[in-house]
Amino acid sequence: MSNVLKTPFIHENFLLETSLAENLYHTFAKSLPIIDYHCHLSPEEVAQDKKFDNITQIWLYGDHYKWRAMRSNGVAERFCTGDATDREKFDKWAQTAPYTLRNPLYHWTHLELNRPFGINDRLLSPETADSIWDETNAKLAQDNFSARGIMKQMNVELVCTTDDPIDTLEHHRKIARENAAGRFSSRVLPTLRPDKALAVDKPEVFKAWVEALGQRCDTEIRDYEGFLGAIKSRYAWFHENGCRLSDHGLGLFPLCELDSRGNLTPEFSRESADVVLKKALALEPLTQGEIGAFQWRTLHELCRLNHEFGWTQQFHFGAMRNNNTRNFRALGADSGFDSIGDGDVALAMSRFLDMLDREEKLTRTILYNLNPAWNHVVGTMLGNFQDGVVPGKIQFGSGWWFLDQKDGMEAQMNTLSNLGLLRRFVGMLTDSRSFLSYPRHEYFRRILCNLLANDVKKGLLPNDEKLLGALVSEVSYHNAKEFFRF
Amino acid sequence: MSNVLKTPFIHENFLLETSLAENLYHTFAKSLPIIDYHCHLSPEEVAQDKKFDNITQIWLYGDHYKWRAMRSNGVAERFCTGDATDREKFDKWAQTAPYTLRNPLYHWTHLELNRPFGINDRLLSPETADSIWDETNAKLAQDNFSARGIMKQMNVELVCTTDDPIDTLEHHRKIARENAAGRFSSRVLPTLRPDKALAVDKPEVFKAWVEALGQRCDTEIRDYEGFLGAIKSRYAWFHENGCRLSDHGLGLFPLCELDSRGNLTPEFSRESADVVLKKALALEPLTQGEIGAFQWRTLHELCRLNHEFGWTQQFHFGAMRNNNTRNFRALGADSGFDSIGDGDVALAMSRFLDMLDREEKLTRTILYNLNPAWNHVVGTMLGNFQDGVVPGKIQFGSGWWFLDQKDGMEAQMNTLSNLGLLRRFVGMLTDSRSFLSYPRHEYFRRILCNLLANDVKKGLLPNDEKLLGALVSEVSYHNAKEFFRF
Amino acid sequence: MSNVLKTPFIHENFLLETSLAENLYHTFAKSLPIIDYHCHLSPEEVAQDKKFDNITQIWLYGDHYKWRAMRSNGVAERFCTGDATDREKFDKWAQTAPYTLRNPLYHWTHLELNRPFGINDRLLSPETADSIWDETNAKLAQDNFSARGIMKQMNVELVCTTDDPIDTLEHHRKIARENAAGRFSSRVLPTLRPDKALAVDKPEVFKAWVEALGQRCDTEIRDYEGFLGAIKSRYAWFHENGCRLSDHGLGLFPLCELDSRGNLTPEFSRESADVVLKKALALEPLTQGEIGAFQWRTLHELCRLNHEFGWTQQFHFGAMRNNNTRNFRALGADSGFDSIGDGDVALAMSRFLDMLDREEKLTRTILYNLNPAWNHVVGTMLGNFQDGVVPGKIQFGSGWWFLDQKDGMEAQMNTLSNLGLLRRFVGMLTDSRSFLSYPRHEYFRRILCNLLANDVKKGLLPNDEKLLGALVSEVSYHNAKEFFRF
Repeated sequence: MSNVLKTPFIHENFLLETSLAENLYHTFAKSLPIIDYHCHLSPEEVAQDKKFDNITQIWLYGDHYKWRAMRSNGVAERFCTGDATDREKFDKWAQTAPYTLRNPLYHWTHLELNRPFGINDRLLSPETADSIWDETNAKLAQDNFSARGIMKQMNVELVCTTDDPIDTLEHHRKIARENAAGRFSSRVLPTLRPDKALAVDKPEVFKAWVEALGQRCDTEIRDYEGFLGAIKSRYAWFHENGCRLSDHGLGLFPLCELDSRGNLTPEFSRESADVVLKKALALEPLTQGEIGAFQWRTLHELCRLNHEFGWTQQFHFGAMRNNNTRNFRALGADSGFDSIGDGDVALAMSRFLDMLDREEKLTRTILYNLNPAWNHVVGTMLGNFQDGVVPGKIQFGSGWWFLDQKDGMEAQMNTLSNLGLLRRFVGMLTDSRSFLSYPRHEYFRRILCNLLANDVKKGLLPNDEKLLGALVSEVSYHNAKEFFRF
Repeated sequence: MSNVLKTPFIHENFLLETSLAENLYHTFAKSLPIIDYHCHLSPEEVAQDKKFDNITQIWLYGDHYKWRAMRSNGVAERFCTGDATDREKFDKWAQTAPYTLRNPLYHWTHLELNRPFGINDRLLSPETADSIWDETNAKLAQDNFSARGIMKQMNVELVCTTDDPIDTLEHHRKIARENAAGRFSSRVLPTLRPDKALAVDKPEVFKAWVEALGQRCDTEIRDYEGFLGAIKSRYAWFHENGCRLSDHGLGLFPLCELDSRGNLTPEFSRESADVVLKKALALEPLTQGEIGAFQWRTLHELCRLNHEFGWTQQFHFGAMRNNNTRNFRALGADSGFDSIGDGDVALAMSRFLDMLDREEKLTRTILYNLNPAWNHVVGTMLGNFQDGVVPGKIQFGSGWWFLDQKDGMEAQMNTLSNLGLLRRFVGMLTDSRSFLSYPRHEYFRRILCNLLANDVKKGLLPNDEKLLGALVSEVSYHNAKEFFRF
Repeated sequence: MSNVLKTPFIHENFLLETSLAENLYHTFAKSLPIIDYHCHLSPEEVAQDKKFDNITQIWLYGDHYKWRAMRSNGVAERFCTGDATDREKFDKWAQTAPYTLRNPLYHWTHLELNRPFGINDRLLSPETADSIWDETNAKLAQDNFSARGIMKQMNVELVCTTDDPIDTLEHHRKIARENAAGRFSSRVLPTLRPDKALAVDKPEVFKAWVEALGQRCDTEIRDYEGFLGAIKSRYAWFHENGCRLSDHGLGLFPLCELDSRGNLTPEFSRESADVVLKKALALEPLTQGEIGAFQWRTLHELCRLNHEFGWTQQFHFGAMRNNNTRNFRALGADSGFDSIGDGDVALAMSRFLDMLDREEKLTRTILYNLNPAWNHVVGTMLGNFQDGVVPGKIQFGSGWWFLDQKDGMEAQMNTLSNLGLLRRFVGMLTDSRSFLSYPRHEYFRRILCNLLANDVKKGLLPNDEKLLGALVSEVSYHNAKEFFRF
């Protein structure tokens, strides 16, 4: 059969260009469990142990990466997010796949067919669509292909979802009870993502969220003190339920102003934030200055809480979202119309972190930047705030979103290596909405091993298996295990 | 003779590092015709079938790349743009060539000596200057080294020149007649480049151009409606004469302002443009705000026409021109004193394209950026506006100007690959003023084949000749052929 | 003994991946003397021929690169800049070294142990700390490991230190006398670094410096004319003592404003600078506009002097300093809390250089940028101001500070190669405070040879030893020798 590969594309030594790379991967990386400390999985689907009727449901629903590729290939919206049948959508993806050569989707697709589906003798294309549809759907009907089944197959020790502060965490609590009862071994912890606490630029969204926050805390939020108090009570609830990270999505870091003695100007005070909050809740118009100052102050307050609870704070910055108005109106956010933003980042980031450091409230921090032109700014920012206590306290996050590909991961690791300590890196995370994305940890580990082995080949690193193996296993697993204190 | 190479530097497998690369190039790329969809050739020289007295005339006249290299090497202006003899100029270039090692000029020079001149046994240097001068000049005296002769030798199917809207297109029409009569097979189509329609920042230039435009259209342009009408009549004339592309040279995309409901503020309306136009024609001073708003509005109107006529619009942005005042005064523009600009691009570009998309008037688009620090912004911008109808509707243009070298082309292709669909790329163009530049298509195709083959070698792509060959031939020729609908 | 390497990590062909690279390095680069045209050595320590009690004194005192790495690894400040013993500090560095894999510190460390210490059979780690401590300290007790002894061992022909204009240059004069007397062969020349002449943003610093300058010149500085006159007299003194370079540390190039005819607006005049100077000396508050205009005018005046004296001017731009307020207060500047800045650079740099060029006062210039995202802007800026007289008059400085590593050097050389003339590059400098940093020239030369040889291997350069060898020796030594006219 002509569509069967003579040798698999995805095989045990995929991406490993040298025998040293093979050795490093198979000896030090392959068997380690996965700590996926940042993702967007649905805790409800884990709690329910969701099963999937077909490959489209688990692979194409909600995957804006694939939708983008399909649209770029001339595939109509009906087959991306619309009312086409699951089989029609799958076929359109199978048609598009051969056009994604050199895009990470081509690797991810075949890595995921390989694991957990065990399909590595075919490349996805219209010619193989039938057989892949049938085989994957048959597998998905098995118990070990439920949400939990896949997590177990993939050796997932722990995942951190991404959750609104007003979330009850009922699903996390259910899973924790089942963990405790020995019915499920992967832990699923919440991450507090309080972006809406900054959303005074969208007054209706902000007001509704503050009201919901008040309800969740059985209080009415009337002022900034009450607002912070309610948020803090959610931090406590999250902490009690195992949360050890926060996450903050920013266009760019807000910039504060300092007077000639280096102190914050009054607009950035809690008093000013109180005024802005009240205006916002009254839906009164706000100036750009008021919005920016409120966001700075509130992000600062959130980071004080991150420190108070001993969490790790994550900052994802640099995305420019919802660029396509027509499609935003039709499909809403997170539909594949976001892109990489630009602008200056060094001063605002430096000053923000410094204002926390000055009051000794800068907690463990991960900086994820979306624009690789900023890599060197970020890579040197870390060193400004390392404290001589926590190794690798300030982290450069792994290649994020559009950069979550071999070139992007290598660029992040090369920059980090040159400007900081790669060996203290907490490594990979999926950032994914899909239960099929765990092979990205395998992908990362292969790339890491290959990078090191190529360095050895060029004489850039000593050929010292013990030293290299330590780096591999630390970055693949142990650093994250120690750093986050779950 | 010591200056004769034992093995040629430029040979049939130049740049092809693996046997797979050789196979891909020779099987799928080498024989394809050239569609050079963006260049700056003189249509008059094609219409006249110009012959060249010597290599200096065809190689050094008008080549600001070589002038820059010569000046950097300490060669006086007299030998670049001045009154030295053609032989003196050639000798200075021959002296400079060995100092251009690792610069694309070193490759271009020897690729051009190889084809069409058939000289590949010598490197250009003072020692070989005599023999190369003699041999190339003897060739140039032959009929197959006229403008058309070279185009025929180089298998050029079609070129698009770059033309002012007020151009009569008489030379294009003459060539078309000769195409029709079977006397010349390469098509030469115009591209409409209406940059002067935005030049209200240079009032004298703008006024003179508007008057010339009016004369060309047998009308007097008094208001913005008349201005747009005259431009539209030129679009019609260009379209009738085979034009299917426009080209827009921008420092940066102009930025419009939106009110709180997302609508354009009044300064960006046609009514405001009408006021600015009248002031400009009266040579009254304009504010920066007026200039920017007029440019935004007018570029938007031009893009509506691009859509109405079903053309592909090209944007070349990021150049900072005429940096050297002394030399600008002495030599004028395009003399080799331009460089790469910086600044923020994401928001203005996104909003500009979105305003067209909102009214469903965003036509096929190619974005050429000059600053590679923007590559990832551009590479993700594409996906915001792909429409699910035209495959690869929004294109990332091939490495432009200073980036038209192996590293620059690879960076553009790697970015496009990671963030979009390389296989939908319309590929290479020369952007050149010279009839000798066609080997840059060969250069590009070799680089593409080599890139893919190296990926296969590393296990990053399946070793599937059919799949890889399809990509090679599509990007080298077929995508452009289909995309532009000439 | 398990800690002894079977094969050395640093060996004679370190970094040389091909036999051609080996040949180029050993034939054309290895034996050339070192011209270290920019460093921060203490001329006093050379004049005294300082000896070091132990490896910590020469290796860790003052090395903010190592401190940053140690802090990132969780090492407390006491062991970096504090009161721990020298042995304790060394041990902490030995613990950290294995965590610096892939950081340039790992290479620098072992290159320096290899030369001059002759230790290449061990990697620095806690296991080897004892033996390395003992061996290096024993060596340091020898005469040929004094400041001058090391310079002699390392074949240093000439170094340029970095000096405040008010420096007496007594140490340089003493060394020059000993050079003349044949007692010491390495020349040590001053470089004038007049940054404090721009420091009106720090009024106390500025006032104190102006007063000290006046004292040095036996005059009282009351106005801008007197200020410039005093500075000029220091230029004369430096020139008399062998100075042929200036150095200017900038955040970003200041931006001047031009009127509609292209002339400077009045704020940038000497008259305005006179007003600002007087206010500054009276410690009266200055606006941001006054500060910027004064800095522009004064930098312009300094560059006129650079031209008048026929020196080479260096610009180091892009650092964002003292980001960590707590540590700045505790430890002062240059303690390892600086990072890479961002922002727009093209327009200000172009206009600054153009304003000098317009009046034919643009002297030889080296542009060192700290943010590699600017590499292409800088690489094309050069060509705007090459004058057709001095080959390589405008230079792109070698990878600086955070970029002084293999990737950074290769990026700088690749950018320069693609956009200018690598063969006219003046090459490497240490920028270092340490007498042990000379192996960075070896590092650079190895990287250069390897880069060229890899190009040959890929068919990108002709395999012409004479041509390649010329490039290697010119960039390693001869270009600097000719360019600076010491």
